Amino acid sequence: MKKHNFYAGPSILSQYTIDKVAEAVKDFAGTGLSVMEVSHRSKEFIAVMEEAQSLLKELLSVPDGYHVLYLGGGASTQFTMVPMNLMKNKSAYLNTGSWASKAIKEGKFFGEVVEVASSKDANFNYIPKDYTIPSDADYFHITTNNTIYGTEIKHDIDSPVPLIADMSSDIFSRPVDVSKYGIIYGGAQKNLAPAGVTFVVVKESILGNVDRAIPTMLDYRTHIEKASMFNTPPVLPVYAALQTLKWIKQQGGLEEMLKINREKAGMMYAEIERNKLFVPTVSNEDDRSIMNVCFVMSEEYKELEAEFLSFASSKGMIGIKGHRSVGGFRASLYNALPLQSVQALIKAMKDFESKN
Amino acid sequence: MKKHNFYAGPSILSQYTIDKVAEAVKDFAGTGLSVMEVSHRSKEFIAVMEEAQSLLKELLSVPDGYHVLYLGGGASTQFTMVPMNLMKNKSAYLNTGSWASKAIKEGKFFGEVVEVASSKDANFNYIPKDYTIPSDADYFHITTNNTIYGTEIKHDIDSPVPLIADMSSDIFSRPVDVSKYGIIYGGAQKNLAPAGVTFVVVKESILGNVDRAIPTMLDYRTHIEKASMFNTPPVLPVYAALQTLKWIKQQGGLEEMLKINREKAGMMYAEIERNKLFVPTVSNEDDRSIMNVCFVMSEEYKELEAEFLSFASSKGMIGIKGHRSVGGFRASLYNALPLQSVQALIKAMKDFESKN
Repeated sequence: MKKHNFYAGPSILSQYTIDKVAEAVKDFAGTGLSVMEVSHRSKEFIAVMEEAQSLLKELLSVPDGYHVLYLGGGASTQFTMVPMNLMKNKSAYLNTGSWASKAIKEGKFFGEVVEVASSKDANFNYIPKDYTIPSDADYFHITTNNTIYGTEIKHDIDSPVPLIADMSSDIFSRPVDVSKYGIIYGGAQKNLAPAGVTFVVVKESILGNVDRAIPTMLDYRTHIEKASMFNTPPVLPVYAALQTLKWIKQQGGLEEMLKINREKAGMMYAEIERNKLFVPTVSNEDDRSIMNVCFVMSEEYKELEAEFLSFASSKGMIGIKGHRSVGGFRASLYNALPLQSVQALIKAMKDFESKN
Repeated sequence: MKKHNFYAGPSILSQYTIDKVAEAVKDFAGTGLSVMEVSHRSKEFIAVMEEAQSLLKELLSVPDGYHVLYLGGGASTQFTMVPMNLMKNKSAYLNTGSWASKAIKEGKFFGEVVEVASSKDANFNYIPKDYTIPSDADYFHITTNNTIYGTEIKHDIDSPVPLIADMSSDIFSRPVDVSKYGIIYGGAQKNLAPAGVTFVVVKESILGNVDRAIPTMLDYRTHIEKASMFNTPPVLPVYAALQTLKWIKQQGGLEEMLKINREKAGMMYAEIERNKLFVPTVSNEDDRSIMNVCFVMSEEYKELEAEFLSFASSKGMIGIKGHRSVGGFRASLYNALPLQSVQALIKAMKDFESKN
């Protein structure tokens, strides 16, 4: 039976990416060697790294003055690198969930952190709107998509100070005005690549303004200077990232991704609202994520939760159990998830409704 | 034509590892999903992570009180994590090459660094022996194998303070008395896995003695507490590491690895000494690496260097050009390099001698 992969991350990748990696694990670029055993200094891999940088720039329309890096360590390491490289005295953060809270915690190692707003009081089920970004902050940090809670900032915020965005779970889901950001970063394991590589788009002019000594590997300038080849990069994950970028371009780029993502998410939210068994966890439509659709059983059908999970599982759905801090269900609809999987889940929801 | 992969790293992996990863890229553990798109919280991957930890412990005979971690960020990030987690005031380093020098540079961000000895005066072509490890140092750091220069510390040093070893390029080449070490770490991309994962074997009792605040991702205790699952680990590289560990066990473990490695290296050094065209760069036999065999053209045949490289290349040899700081040639003989590749290189050396 065909599986429908709704995992929140690591998560579904395009079949194109999987096929290309499977080939390269056997024979990479005609070298006769596996992509797992070629030198990162080989001309074949240098070409991969360069194209992975230039194609990301092309798809996101990255302006001059920005660099694209592929690093190890995950977005969690960026929680430390951002303040270490940028915070002189004070920074500002918007607290929209668990990952934002983790970023805030690391910021506090390096100076004063102003939490401009938080939706923690409502279990992060909305995106705060009324807040002021202090104009004397060294930067303002946001988490654009909150996988656990199913909320998303779907537009590019205006900020009087450098805007830093963790876009781990919604990068490439829509066009982004990169010129509004100082840094965009994220773990690649949702819309880009297998786990093990972190993308960073960084505006060079915001760097070099802090007095602290920065260890070499944690200094963005190290990686800019060496074009992500200061140390051995995660070769296979970078190769996979390039394949996904090519696939996105083949599909028509980010405008087309946004169109399809809106269609998939729209179908899901419509069914959740229509179906008497379910309710969405995010009530404000503007705040609803088009990547992670979170929903629970409606009050009168609460006792059916485990039964629905097992029913959906019997129909091939994988990874739709909600995070423990929200409960219920989560359907992650990343770029590579086909429309057919959304249709299959909706059919399972309808069938389960008929049964009950 | 069959290729002979002598790359210094990323480098040859066992065919077993390559085949198992190729299968898992298509279908991982019967899940119907690629290993690149399964949740790290899935029971199938948790089993992989647990076995990768326990099998590493088994092969290296890791005593109680130590933890095995699989992290991102490369050995270069360990250059920072070691002093950040261990240095109160002062640490000691042995300078045996380029990577040791990089580790020393990062140590200096956190306190006083005593370089107990250095072979820099002789382009690192030997391992210093006469030195004293200060008993008031918080740790003593060594690089056991120096890929660029072809030297290796092939025994376990006695140290009065916690011994920290970068074993990136000779881990699993021989049995190690782990009880003599505080931390053993390394990038996996030589004897273990594709680039993108870093192994750390750490003795828990040496941690927790510094006053500085340590950012969460850079604190070993974070990763010990969560068994390398604090954040998303590099799933595919960890899966590949497990396959290599299984392969090593199938081959007979580390005693057998050492036997084969000595045989391969012995054949190479014997030919270099016999062949009038070549000379080894490391004259002291005790200091010669069994992983990276470095050699140059002898003085009277210097002008044949490019010609030999091209001749060897025509016979299927890949990656035998020496590092620019040493010149000449480097044959990396990692665990997975078959004896036949060593024989093929030796034949090429003999044939080239006959021609000249």
